[in-house]
Amino acid sequence: MNVEIITVGTELLVGNILNTNAKYLAEELTNLGFNISKHTTVGDNSANLEIAFKYALSKNDLVILTGGLGPTKDDLTKETIAHSLSKNLIEDEKAKEKTISYFKSTKNEIAKNNFKQSLVIEDSTIFYNDNGTAPGMALKHNNKHILLLPGPPNELMPMFEKDVKIYLSKLKDQIIISKDVYLFGIEESKADQTLSDILPNTNPYIGIYAKTGEIKIRVTAHAPQNSTCETLINNVVDIIKTRLGEFIYGIDIKNMQNALVKTAIKSNQKIAVAESCTGGLIASQIVSISGSSDCFNCGIVCYSNEMKEQILGIKETTLSEFGAVSPQVAKQMAQNVRKISKSDIGISTTGIAGPTGGDSNKPVGLVYVGISTSNHTSVYKLLLSKGQPNERQKIRHISALFAMNEARKAILNNEKGVKTNDTSN
Amino acid sequence: MNVEIITVGTELLVGNILNTNAKYLAEELTNLGFNISKHTTVGDNSANLEIAFKYALSKNDLVILTGGLGPTKDDLTKETIAHSLSKNLIEDEKAKEKTISYFKSTKNEIAKNNFKQSLVIEDSTIFYNDNGTAPGMALKHNNKHILLLPGPPNELMPMFEKDVKIYLSKLKDQIIISKDVYLFGIEESKADQTLSDILPNTNPYIGIYAKTGEIKIRVTAHAPQNSTCETLINNVVDIIKTRLGEFIYGIDIKNMQNALVKTAIKSNQKIAVAESCTGGLIASQIVSISGSSDCFNCGIVCYSNEMKEQILGIKETTLSEFGAVSPQVAKQMAQNVRKISKSDIGISTTGIAGPTGGDSNKPVGLVYVGISTSNHTSVYKLLLSKGQPNERQKIRHISALFAMNEARKAILNNEKGVKTNDTSN
Repeated sequence: MNVEIITVGTELLVGNILNTNAKYLAEELTNLGFNISKHTTVGDNSANLEIAFKYALSKNDLVILTGGLGPTKDDLTKETIAHSLSKNLIEDEKAKEKTISYFKSTKNEIAKNNFKQSLVIEDSTIFYNDNGTAPGMALKHNNKHILLLPGPPNELMPMFEKDVKIYLSKLKDQIIISKDVYLFGIEESKADQTLSDILPNTNPYIGIYAKTGEIKIRVTAHAPQNSTCETLINNVVDIIKTRLGEFIYGIDIKNMQNALVKTAIKSNQKIAVAESCTGGLIASQIVSISGSSDCFNCGIVCYSNEMKEQILGIKETTLSEFGAVSPQVAKQMAQNVRKISKSDIGISTTGIAGPTGGDSNKPVGLVYVGISTSNHTSVYKLLLSKGQPNERQKIRHISALFAMNEARKAILNNEKGVKTNDTSN
Repeated sequence: MNVEIITVGTELLVGNILNTNAKYLAEELTNLGFNISKHTTVGDNSANLEIAFKYALSKNDLVILTGGLGPTKDDLTKETIAHSLSKNLIEDEKAKEKTISYFKSTKNEIAKNNFKQSLVIEDSTIFYNDNGTAPGMALKHNNKHILLLPGPPNELMPMFEKDVKIYLSKLKDQIIISKDVYLFGIEESKADQTLSDILPNTNPYIGIYAKTGEIKIRVTAHAPQNSTCETLINNVVDIIKTRLGEFIYGIDIKNMQNALVKTAIKSNQKIAVAESCTGGLIASQIVSISGSSDCFNCGIVCYSNEMKEQILGIKETTLSEFGAVSPQVAKQMAQNVRKISKSDIGISTTGIAGPTGGDSNKPVGLVYVGISTSNHTSVYKLLLSKGQPNERQKIRHISALFAMNEARKAILNNEKGVKTNDTSN
């Protein structure tokens, strides 16, 4: 089934906001097995929207529109589509009730124009909005399908998850299930090559998505039954585990900080962090996870040598002999922050994020990561610069990911009583 | 002049990556005074691209394409456009030299297909690429203009800044200059209302761009001379300063952390941060600024009461009497982190970021921010929840912005010897 996504809104057209809806819908629709032919963005302009919509409908089996369903006079998506298809707008009682109760909950007065949102296109299936007042709609016209969905992502995404996915699955007479495998420390091209024999599969469909320093492999199966989907997915996930298991940090885990927090809470271990070059990034990412207070004791960001001595108790002789960016300092930072905070795992980073501060001996991108447990302290040396401009944030980001991943592994080893190898140098 | 932006790439079409190029170009073109009619995204598919391009060219004066200029067989934008316009591809000597020297600098071998990138459409103006190997091109065809630009944002953006802007300005026979005014603590709708009389202006054009908790007002003027642009812009910036001065934290300053770091370095004051609910976010944002080591002493993330006592020396009696989320604790945190680190400014945050941990007395979204100087310590009470789901990151983000802004003001007052009001409660 060919699909075109039309996003409506002048704020998109003139670049005020990023078009996250187009990406979200494209990714979801691809996973559902639809073939996307084009994205189009038009402003809040009925004539332009009508031209774009009619053209899209002539070329596709399904057209999904987002935006322009709100209460203002600029919002004219449903009016335009109704007009294009010679349909009427009718009042929907449940949508009206929803609007009234929504405004009651937010304690705001209902402006009169909000009742415009109770109007829906006749003969359409309604998706009621739990996070706003504009309902979504689906209709069938000459064997083609048209969906109108709200523009605000915090309304669109829950509606898509709750109702639209089911509706679209039914168009395909199939159940669709996905599993996400998260990997760190492997390039996209390497993963691509390692899985090249199974990547052409269409069921399950295997998508590789790269982010800075990490990748996500999404495995999506469709079948009439749940259990068939599960079997199809698990077979592929098993292959990924066999070939790339060493790089996997979690399945359906969302991100590294979540993997670390979940692992630490599960094994009842407490974390402390001493950061230099990552400067609070690791602490901040851990704290971004709700519930992290159950495993996170403290973070110390010591940028200057004086602070490293005073707060973390790094020996002055170590700092003067080896320098702040050294395996010796990384080791003491991880050990001392663990001891000071009476934690089970101490994490440390010290390095040169650049763009200044590097030399031939200690170049930009040199980072030492320390991981300390009561049994053992490991230090890892990373060289993260590729000689490109503006690498500071990338170097800090990958250092933080690396440190959290090693901490996660150390917690698992701690649990098993395994002694890790000393990789310091 | 009407413009359509066509972004080319299967990774965009299937939602692997966000279309940041469309937003970037749309914002820049709007600021340059062009009228954007539509964005279109197609995959790496020559037939679909040709249809989209011909349609766009028939409806617009200018068509800008990004992506598909690379070395692989999937990259077919210039081949498709050349074919559509019945033009030839010819080898450009300078592009070839650039490719060779680029690969020399990265120490990678040149794969043979990279020389495909030395081919350009005949009769076009070439934009050489300083950050990659694919040159950009501009050509005129039947009084219409066509631009082909590389897809990677780190190649596109510098090329646009350096060459494309000048090229496009010449199409309009005007110089175009912008100034960005950054504001915190004011809603977009309020700024909109306050400036409603000057917002319809087209020269200078005034754009208001909202991000979480802050807004940017971009003032863009066009004129034959630089000095005329400057005068036009300054008149409007003066109006904004008069009406909204209390909310402005900087002009052309990029973001709050940059404003804070620049202010601190300029007045030679050192910063220390003690964070609870923001959990390292403030430290991390400060450290993200290159050169921040000149003003940033240390950050301490104390999530548990025990750590607050042990590392920050918060009195056990204060914690038990008032609780960790209290103005008293915020005050001690800011004072103590400043003293421990011998800094000029101590910043603290303690609050309930949610979604759990709140009650009727101390609800989710309650945050205390402390700012301590040698003269005085202020504590600010914030109520940041709007009762919506998933507010944790927003609450942390706005708390961090607020704290950095107050620290910035305290540095300026410190410099002037001003004693701030005690707003603790």
